[in-house]
Amino acid sequence: MSSLISNTRILLASRPVGNPTPENLTIETVEQPNPEAGQVLVKTIYVSLDPAMRGWMNEGKSYIPPIQLGDVFRAGTAGQVITSNHPDYAVGDYVTGSWGVQQFGLLTGVSDQAKGDDIRKVDTTIAPLETYMATLGMPGMTAYFGLLDTGQPQPGETVVVSGAAGAVGSVVGQIAKIKGCRVVGIAGDQEKCDYCVNELGFDACVNYKTGDLRKALKAACPEGIDVYFDNVGGDILDTVLTQIRRKARIVICGAISQYNNTTPVKGPSNYLSLLTNRARMEGIVVFDNAANYGTAAREMADWIHEGKLGARVQVEHGIDNFLSTLMMLFTGQNFGKLLLKVD
Amino acid sequence: MSSLISNTRILLASRPVGNPTPENLTIETVEQPNPEAGQVLVKTIYVSLDPAMRGWMNEGKSYIPPIQLGDVFRAGTAGQVITSNHPDYAVGDYVTGSWGVQQFGLLTGVSDQAKGDDIRKVDTTIAPLETYMATLGMPGMTAYFGLLDTGQPQPGETVVVSGAAGAVGSVVGQIAKIKGCRVVGIAGDQEKCDYCVNELGFDACVNYKTGDLRKALKAACPEGIDVYFDNVGGDILDTVLTQIRRKARIVICGAISQYNNTTPVKGPSNYLSLLTNRARMEGIVVFDNAANYGTAAREMADWIHEGKLGARVQVEHGIDNFLSTLMMLFTGQNFGKLLLKVD
Repeated sequence: MSSLISNTRILLASRPVGNPTPENLTIETVEQPNPEAGQVLVKTIYVSLDPAMRGWMNEGKSYIPPIQLGDVFRAGTAGQVITSNHPDYAVGDYVTGSWGVQQFGLLTGVSDQAKGDDIRKVDTTIAPLETYMATLGMPGMTAYFGLLDTGQPQPGETVVVSGAAGAVGSVVGQIAKIKGCRVVGIAGDQEKCDYCVNELGFDACVNYKTGDLRKALKAACPEGIDVYFDNVGGDILDTVLTQIRRKARIVICGAISQYNNTTPVKGPSNYLSLLTNRARMEGIVVFDNAANYGTAAREMADWIHEGKLGARVQVEHGIDNFLSTLMMLFTGQNFGKLLLKVD
Repeated sequence: MSSLISNTRILLASRPVGNPTPENLTIETVEQPNPEAGQVLVKTIYVSLDPAMRGWMNEGKSYIPPIQLGDVFRAGTAGQVITSNHPDYAVGDYVTGSWGVQQFGLLTGVSDQAKGDDIRKVDTTIAPLETYMATLGMPGMTAYFGLLDTGQPQPGETVVVSGAAGAVGSVVGQIAKIKGCRVVGIAGDQEKCDYCVNELGFDACVNYKTGDLRKALKAACPEGIDVYFDNVGGDILDTVLTQIRRKARIVICGAISQYNNTTPVKGPSNYLSLLTNRARMEGIVVFDNAANYGTAAREMADWIHEGKLGARVQVEHGIDNFLSTLMMLFTGQNFGKLLLKVD
């Protein structure tokens, strides 16, 4: 049987300095091989856009190896099985995985995250496919384990989260509310702040682009900050450090303000506040919790059905728009979980 | 009874910008009142010189309030009771406390650290008075609790300590050896490095002033760094961050390289290594462990008697030399615990 399917995909052509440009990518269309025994062919529906992607474009090992030049651009993905030679998957099954920015994925279903071959069947009668890319996917897992295991919020404590309207931040804030905390978001425009307060139930949300962040935080967190979940780094982290309480926990999830720097990362000048406050700053990588994703997903699915947890998903269209969609994360143009629909 | 005793003491006259100068201090000699009921008069023998003193000279609350202008300069002290109107203390008793840089202390024996009235009798038949200012005093307690409770070193792990030949660092390294770790010091001259390896039993010690610290650390810690006990901050902290292992613990005890800055503190540019390595950076203040000092002192006294724990003490002389002696800490001229003998 010969294939009549062509697969448009995006490869990493070169490593960016500062902001990625179209020259860093190659878009190509190739003939899609058919699945061999044990393989399934998946048609991509959604590609996930995540801040971490910028780091994967750099040379040098981070928490996972970089994308190799000439390789398909790594990405979280969701799609539907269109041909199956694997007993566990049937045509029509919806699956999530990490087969990268391309229209089709040829997968073995073997759990080998490094090779991107791992796929998981998802039940779209429980939640729509988008939710498996958001609250029930990596962003939700990152929020759940980062906040609960590392942040360890106690009822009555004040939890601050930056990137508050983003895929991770919005879930962090809602879980902190479920756990009985006072929750204050930090976001980059008033519409996002209003969303956090009015739709997600945050107690307050500070627009860091208007006025004095330190004063605004002080007003929103009169007793200081017990847990800070940081998605942005830079000046915002430094300002939060001036407001932490004794024994505060700072969860370092990301530093989106620094990813396109051509100068060295801005280290937190106020880190000695950790000393005076006997506080802790700790980095997290969601993959470490893979064994417990199922438990977390079940608990979060319950919260979704109880109406306690929701998340906005923003869908952009067209694989050709991959780069411009990715850049929306760094300019703050996204609202909630950002997906690219490629079909 | 009228007093015939005069008390020379040092007051904080003004707050320094950058390096403290003689203009920031007042030396005065006043008549020493006699103890009233419940008070003891202690003749100072030793004043402790500690890096934290520089922070106490600044305005603004740190982990304890600053020294107020016109107040006696706060300092750890040791001395001998010369008059007692307190049932728990007899003339001749040796005591330690925090009555500041002055020839005499008038104390109530009441445990009120904030007022500096707390004194503790020490038994100089167990260890010499100097040891109660060093290994069995605040530096030893800082090392003990900071390393064991916060650093949590496991046998076989690699522990790195900066300020390795200093009062805290030398104890950190020796306790880490007792706990079965590979221990690597960082110090500012070869004599100190030799001391750490040859006398204290460190596995290696790197002179950060010669050559490439990153390369030297890599050679000394081929498997990476599990625990870093930081006394210095600045570029050394940043370099260590490039060498930490998965789940590393960084204990922030101090940042002596930054205390006399007139520019903002240098934040660690490489702090995102905490993220990629799922590592932790945590600040400590020794006072938090006050309830457990006794237990720690007994264990450390045993180690001293078993010959596993020793510490060099450097004694300078004369209360007039207080400032020049203090500055030795910042220029690296001290070797081990630095004391000023004032009698």
